[in-house]
Amino acid sequence: MAEAISQRTKERLLHLMRLLENHALAGNLAPVTSAQVELLTGWPRDTIRKDISCLNGGAAGSNSGYDPQLLIPVIKKALHLDRRRKFCVVGLGRLGSAYLNFAPPELAEFELAAGFDSNVNRVEMLRCPAPLYPAYKLAEVISRFTIEIALLCVPAQAAQAVAEKCTAAGIRGILNFAPAALNLPPEVVVRNVYVADELRSLAVQMRS
Amino acid sequence: MAEAISQRTKERLLHLMRLLENHALAGNLAPVTSAQVELLTGWPRDTIRKDISCLNGGAAGSNSGYDPQLLIPVIKKALHLDRRRKFCVVGLGRLGSAYLNFAPPELAEFELAAGFDSNVNRVEMLRCPAPLYPAYKLAEVISRFTIEIALLCVPAQAAQAVAEKCTAAGIRGILNFAPAALNLPPEVVVRNVYVADELRSLAVQMRS
Repeated sequence: MAEAISQRTKERLLHLMRLLENHALAGNLAPVTSAQVELLTGWPRDTIRKDISCLNGGAAGSNSGYDPQLLIPVIKKALHLDRRRKFCVVGLGRLGSAYLNFAPPELAEFELAAGFDSNVNRVEMLRCPAPLYPAYKLAEVISRFTIEIALLCVPAQAAQAVAEKCTAAGIRGILNFAPAALNLPPEVVVRNVYVADELRSLAVQMRS
Repeated sequence: MAEAISQRTKERLLHLMRLLENHALAGNLAPVTSAQVELLTGWPRDTIRKDISCLNGGAAGSNSGYDPQLLIPVIKKALHLDRRRKFCVVGLGRLGSAYLNFAPPELAEFELAAGFDSNVNRVEMLRCPAPLYPAYKLAEVISRFTIEIALLCVPAQAAQAVAEKCTAAGIRGILNFAPAALNLPPEVVVRNVYVADELRSLAVQMRS
């Protein structure tokens, strides 16, 4: 079904799911109306209603609004987030090791399966709920545990080579925290989340 | 001038600037052609040429391509990134403290001016090139040093209240690392960079 949903709609549904989760986390049990979503997001309420109705014919909604407890699982299923995916952290410097202990309660759909670093001392010293490995075991571990996603936290000059090793071993999605543009096969999805570039984008938006 | 540049063009120019910087960092002194940029980004080369020509009438380009050393400063100026902006890190847990020591060489346009945490012990223990303050000094320090940007690394339940304090003190742009949708005056620019949501977006793109 998700194949029929446009990328823009998927992005809105993801964002909506986050709003609903925060609403529920705040202990608010009331249904959420499309007017409230419009206020919080700026999307016209007709767009919101259409996005949701394309999921299940509107079964999760009613005149009084959408029940987060019903709608969240419906969105998850439609976006194929109801299957648990394994990810690894590659490069365990300051940023990478911060993400090792990253386990938000609502994020049961992802499982930290491994961490890697070229520095064996670091691998032995760091505390982490998942097993850590020296970098030379990267391909073997990714393929043995069918890890699909990598958080790439290595220095810029190593990023391309490490990313190629990851994808050769089976990684299909990369969150790239390194300030390097990766050149990978088109079937690999890359999202660049380099904080310096985010700062620049922010500054550019602030001017206007 | 930047006021006349559309948001889409600005985003492309930012990305292009990053490509040029990486090109130069890799020690490559040759000019970059629009055909190369097309290959790396997927943007049609006519779009690239038009984006660049709207900057300075094409002065930075020639038939043999664009010289990164000439074009980078031109883009920076057009996007008003030639002025140094101060930023602070609010919340010095694992992620926040990782960003305290974040100073990529090419990022001279931003200056880490302060860090804040509600835990006074943490403020006293952490090593950082910038001064760290207990959270109750947040408003005073932001306003005294005219800090414009905040990296918000506090827990989700604190994010809205802290963001409000920041903006009341003069912050005009927030990189929000907390899993919380912030509700702020429209003149404040917010970019959400929550890694769990980035993972979800990645997973959703991987399916298609």
